[in-house]
Amino acid sequence: MTKDMTPEEQDARHAEKMKKKKAARDKILATKTIEKGLVIVHTGKGKGKSTAAFGMAFRQIGHGNKIAVIQFVKGAWNSGEKAVLEKFPELVTIKAMGEGFTWETQDRQKDIENAEAAWAEAKKAILDPEIRFVLMDELNIVLRYDYLPIDEVTSFLQNEKPEDTHVVITGRNAKDELIEIADLVTDMTLIKHPFRSGVKAQEGIEF
Amino acid sequence: MTKDMTPEEQDARHAEKMKKKKAARDKILATKTIEKGLVIVHTGKGKGKSTAAFGMAFRQIGHGNKIAVIQFVKGAWNSGEKAVLEKFPELVTIKAMGEGFTWETQDRQKDIENAEAAWAEAKKAILDPEIRFVLMDELNIVLRYDYLPIDEVTSFLQNEKPEDTHVVITGRNAKDELIEIADLVTDMTLIKHPFRSGVKAQEGIEF
Repeated sequence: MTKDMTPEEQDARHAEKMKKKKAARDKILATKTIEKGLVIVHTGKGKGKSTAAFGMAFRQIGHGNKIAVIQFVKGAWNSGEKAVLEKFPELVTIKAMGEGFTWETQDRQKDIENAEAAWAEAKKAILDPEIRFVLMDELNIVLRYDYLPIDEVTSFLQNEKPEDTHVVITGRNAKDELIEIADLVTDMTLIKHPFRSGVKAQEGIEF
Repeated sequence: MTKDMTPEEQDARHAEKMKKKKAARDKILATKTIEKGLVIVHTGKGKGKSTAAFGMAFRQIGHGNKIAVIQFVKGAWNSGEKAVLEKFPELVTIKAMGEGFTWETQDRQKDIENAEAAWAEAKKAILDPEIRFVLMDELNIVLRYDYLPIDEVTSFLQNEKPEDTHVVITGRNAKDELIEIADLVTDMTLIKHPFRSGVKAQEGIEF
């Protein structure tokens, strides 16, 4: 179709199309006026759940906002991310809880204790009026194993989280109850993974 | 089922299950021995494509590795991320090309020129032996509009990219030809978005 057009006709057609697209986009944006703290969930089997959450944390830091990061599962953490976060001690609170993935410890009672301690830190950070962004990394794993009651978490987020505080929750298998109360949910879907062809975890990519 | 078990029985059962899980996981990890620079693609309609890519960039910075970030579409960029990247001038090369989203400029020839200039910078960064990680942010958008020939991009990545350099390409609608040659592809799938309920773009979340 466009093959029969001169370059000038193609350009004119393109300009017209883009003009319509911009008008439609501006119209939609004009209807978005509410500002509020969001409950954000990153789930799915693909990569990027924690990485995107840390990316948002770095954004907040870039804007000069105070943030907190709570680690619910040890070993899920990235030494690279930690090194960058530690460059901003005046803005960043890190609570690294947990004793390792559950398949490392094999001790359910200990895991439950760690989950409860991490949740207590998370609640403190969320209620802190100076902190506007709290990342609860791998909380979904802990909820999935019922180390924390899901009702307690959803009820706290709905009733006690300050209006203007954002929280981000990561991990596979997000519970339906959490998705129900969340504002923004993204499923990171695995399309292709190099592990399948024998490539190992590499510095700066996986850790 | 677990309801009839004593807490001690539940714990023992859990320990056994986790032990098996750890053994299976260790066995799989032992087969992963190849180390190589990956071609990584973040696509899909959901959020987190660029954010996760920037998260990986921050990881690299945390490990003290040099990185480059090439912006193919202006306006896609986050002032927060930029502020943090600029804190590491000795490690970070930023090339912000482009004149705005295509529906802003409505000028196809100008868009093509910008795309070509950005691609030239990207190739330079990828070939730089000191740089091991190159983020080509929103390259998929440019490829989708055929502002750059897809064959040129895939051929360069397959034949000229140094073995140990990672590249990350973001943007919706990744072309099949790109997915074909990529090592790691993740589709960020939108499950729930606050825009639907009238919430506007917010500092540190969207920008």
